[in-house]
Amino acid sequence: MPGRVKNILFIMCDQLRWDYLSCYGHPTLLTPHIDALAARGVRFTRAYVQSPICGPSRMSFYTGRYMQSHGSNWNGIPLRVGEMTMGDYYRPLGVQTVLVGKTHMAADKEGMDRLGVDPKSIIGVRVSECGFDPYERDDGLHARGPDGTREAPPRYNRYLNEKGYSGSNPWHDWTNAAQGDRNTLASGWAMKNARKPARVKEEDSETPYMTRRGIDFIREAGEKPWCLHLSYIKPHWPYIAPAPYNDMYSAKHVIPVVRSEEEKRDPHPVLRAFYDYLISTNFSRDEVRNEVIPVYMGLIKQIDDQMGVLFNFLENGGYFKNTMIVFTSDHGDYLGDHWLGEKELFHEPSVKIPLIIYDPSHDADATRGTTCDDLVEAIDLAPTFLEAFGGNPAEQSHRLEGRSLMPLLSGQQPEKWRSHVFSEYDYSIQYGAAFKTMPSEQRLFMVADKDWKYVHAIGYRPMLFDLKNDPHELRDLGADPKFTDVCQRYAKVLSEWGLRQSQRVTRSEQQIRAMRGRAARFGILIGVWDECELADEYWVGYRGDVSV
Amino acid sequence: MPGRVKNILFIMCDQLRWDYLSCYGHPTLLTPHIDALAARGVRFTRAYVQSPICGPSRMSFYTGRYMQSHGSNWNGIPLRVGEMTMGDYYRPLGVQTVLVGKTHMAADKEGMDRLGVDPKSIIGVRVSECGFDPYERDDGLHARGPDGTREAPPRYNRYLNEKGYSGSNPWHDWTNAAQGDRNTLASGWAMKNARKPARVKEEDSETPYMTRRGIDFIREAGEKPWCLHLSYIKPHWPYIAPAPYNDMYSAKHVIPVVRSEEEKRDPHPVLRAFYDYLISTNFSRDEVRNEVIPVYMGLIKQIDDQMGVLFNFLENGGYFKNTMIVFTSDHGDYLGDHWLGEKELFHEPSVKIPLIIYDPSHDADATRGTTCDDLVEAIDLAPTFLEAFGGNPAEQSHRLEGRSLMPLLSGQQPEKWRSHVFSEYDYSIQYGAAFKTMPSEQRLFMVADKDWKYVHAIGYRPMLFDLKNDPHELRDLGADPKFTDVCQRYAKVLSEWGLRQSQRVTRSEQQIRAMRGRAARFGILIGVWDECELADEYWVGYRGDVSV
Repeated sequence: MPGRVKNILFIMCDQLRWDYLSCYGHPTLLTPHIDALAARGVRFTRAYVQSPICGPSRMSFYTGRYMQSHGSNWNGIPLRVGEMTMGDYYRPLGVQTVLVGKTHMAADKEGMDRLGVDPKSIIGVRVSECGFDPYERDDGLHARGPDGTREAPPRYNRYLNEKGYSGSNPWHDWTNAAQGDRNTLASGWAMKNARKPARVKEEDSETPYMTRRGIDFIREAGEKPWCLHLSYIKPHWPYIAPAPYNDMYSAKHVIPVVRSEEEKRDPHPVLRAFYDYLISTNFSRDEVRNEVIPVYMGLIKQIDDQMGVLFNFLENGGYFKNTMIVFTSDHGDYLGDHWLGEKELFHEPSVKIPLIIYDPSHDADATRGTTCDDLVEAIDLAPTFLEAFGGNPAEQSHRLEGRSLMPLLSGQQPEKWRSHVFSEYDYSIQYGAAFKTMPSEQRLFMVADKDWKYVHAIGYRPMLFDLKNDPHELRDLGADPKFTDVCQRYAKVLSEWGLRQSQRVTRSEQQIRAMRGRAARFGILIGVWDECELADEYWVGYRGDVSV
Repeated sequence: MPGRVKNILFIMCDQLRWDYLSCYGHPTLLTPHIDALAARGVRFTRAYVQSPICGPSRMSFYTGRYMQSHGSNWNGIPLRVGEMTMGDYYRPLGVQTVLVGKTHMAADKEGMDRLGVDPKSIIGVRVSECGFDPYERDDGLHARGPDGTREAPPRYNRYLNEKGYSGSNPWHDWTNAAQGDRNTLASGWAMKNARKPARVKEEDSETPYMTRRGIDFIREAGEKPWCLHLSYIKPHWPYIAPAPYNDMYSAKHVIPVVRSEEEKRDPHPVLRAFYDYLISTNFSRDEVRNEVIPVYMGLIKQIDDQMGVLFNFLENGGYFKNTMIVFTSDHGDYLGDHWLGEKELFHEPSVKIPLIIYDPSHDADATRGTTCDDLVEAIDLAPTFLEAFGGNPAEQSHRLEGRSLMPLLSGQQPEKWRSHVFSEYDYSIQYGAAFKTMPSEQRLFMVADKDWKYVHAIGYRPMLFDLKNDPHELRDLGADPKFTDVCQRYAKVLSEWGLRQSQRVTRSEQQIRAMRGRAARFGILIGVWDECELADEYWVGYRGDVSV
């Protein structure tokens, strides 16, 4: 099957909330370049990540599999060696599958060692980099380790040094810090410094730098098709931006907080642990929201401006003719909604993402500028790209748990689209110490459709939200006996999901069908009493004259 | 931790029904050597396989993981590259982990190729051989393929040729065939030939040959500890035995069939497909049972005699002092019970196995000759052996889903032993064509305890057996509304099982705990508003005089 597109530009932001773009309805944060992409493509209104935290969410994007299937349950938990990723699917089709930016991948060094895979070989690098060829890997958080030497400095740090930004950690000291009082460094790690301008020049900050690196790759890529994952760290914390983005917005541009006093009365025991976390208590204060959110918005505005730069380059290079462009995020940010900061739980600000897909082919002309309200999961992108490159996702359904969005992009309504979306969160590392359970039990599962959102918590009562009548998810009905039947209905859906076929990864549905009857064809004749019960052909090789 | 034993001899029969040994109560089939082992060890009365068919069952034995976790769902479905097996656990402890006989392993060639693992390298061979060093691999079924050349001839065939048994497939023509009328070959594939003596001399038949090969390995093994998997094909079909075992038993020695007319009235739709299979219809005939079962018994008697040879060798070599000896099977055989032949479903004759463990250490003196009625699974052996060799199964609980039986061998009652056993069967290859569902949906799940056995069938009603009041499992209560609540109770247990943590294989429970708080230790400071909210130590590296 010939590919529908030549290239795919798979753009990901980090921690970009679905509703912080003007095309998704943000009233004060105008993002004209991203909106323009949406005007040329399809904007998905119900796209959900498979885990609302960077690492697991990305591993689901890259593998096309649920977290429970790929097992990389939290940041820093290595993706097991052998787990297939985008590169494994696209390279056989002749597609360079390349990374510029962040993946949050942790390599399974022990697994590679066990299998004798040299981490420095081409295969070893790909296994370590989640299947991508790393044009530039940069996870965007370059903190000092316990001994100040956590990792090899990223290329970006060298770039900064070369530009005259001094020090061993210019990422922190210039890009993620401002000048404080009396010539002190005001670290971006302290949110009270958010509105101060980062010390770096705007053009040398992370978002423009990574845009240029993406353009560098495209310029150098030659004629061979590519899938470029251009993956920005922003608007992820540290919440600090260079001028002019640091004070482009102020408290008056901040949309109202979504929370209620009722939420804090007798909350779900797991949720209670989340409430107690520093980022939740801080984001519950208006002072914090009014200082931090404007900068979060500024970082998004900067991304939008860089999308302008990028799309302009693509337009001039003729790439809009043959390149699918995808814009999305790995999860959202509570920003104080529901008394929470960060992400990790399953309210819409955390688990729902923006997703815009521009498909250059004529098949997609009918859907340009439209929205799609179908239930979509992050794991759908891997099979979508596979189909776009001319592969057949149906042949990979034993591995790829998502579904190709291609029919939706063409305006076709697939016969049986999914009825539910699933997401998971493993809180064993972050909050597990507060509970007596084993780490393996410290997990949450979300099942949602357009009506209800159900959260199963191992060892605790469920949470339940009525999305129709309580769209802001302010009332957890999970403890209300009136809704026991609703809970049971979704528990059943989750139960079926838990029993799904996810690990028979070495044989496809088609291959299983082809194996039927194989034993007899290979001369393994089971349960026969008399030879006449099977046709003569089966006995070839089993007859003979013993006197010969 | 020093090992409790030096060596482990892990003996497996194929298709040996739990109750076809005199120590398990068979009235006419006397197995004194196996009984003697039981008299020196512990005999488990409720040991269940994780799938009642060779390949998946064995993969569960060797990986210590449920079928849904390892994904090798049927014979011939490769175990995915990277899935850890006994050898991966024991070799780091200095233990040679070696195979003599059958594993039913299919290598994941595609996965090895993807990772650049050379199938001929030491690692590649182990990956291909399910983690064992193959002293002699022999899956025991050497049929002719469609073109008569299915596989390289096994060493056993060369052995037979050297002994003067002629032909390209002496496995079939001599060991698994008899002489028929007028000098024709009477193939063992036709069960009507069962009682005829195989053409091979008894000493050259498979069971004594493989015993000698096991002894060969032990003789050559030297001082280095070993785990030898000595894995016999018998009493698996073809049901044919050399003299004198072919007519050592007759119809009068056959225990009564267990079945009822009620079973065939409106049976479960999946069960109905099994009833229609040739081996079921044949084994439902008394003529077949009376001819075949005596030979099945003879094959077991031969195994017992060979156990005599083997144990005698071990005794003379002093191995009983330092070697754990395990005797078990990969599943049972219906032999006409419940109107079925073969195995695959979850009645006790199929899913329950004999399991005898002799532990040479003094810790086990208290349990010698006793039985253990606790619920045991095949996946328990991998962690048991690990502990016996001095490893710590608790550190592998993120991979090994079974539990070490060591406390039970020492006569201790573990604090929380498992309350249920689980088994699975994927009928997509064998019977799937009879159903409209997708292969991935064609799966069954069993949950059992000492009271009930519940079988979940995707897309169909469950099956349910009352083990207390109907120990022969003759009445399927799964469609009876009176037992809906019982079904729901077990469905809930299965649901929890389905959501278990099974794929986070790169980090252990202990490692998860150690990761807690790591972000801050590495200088990633989340949600801080004011520097004073965190101790000074966290800010090291983030402060400075910008005027310097």
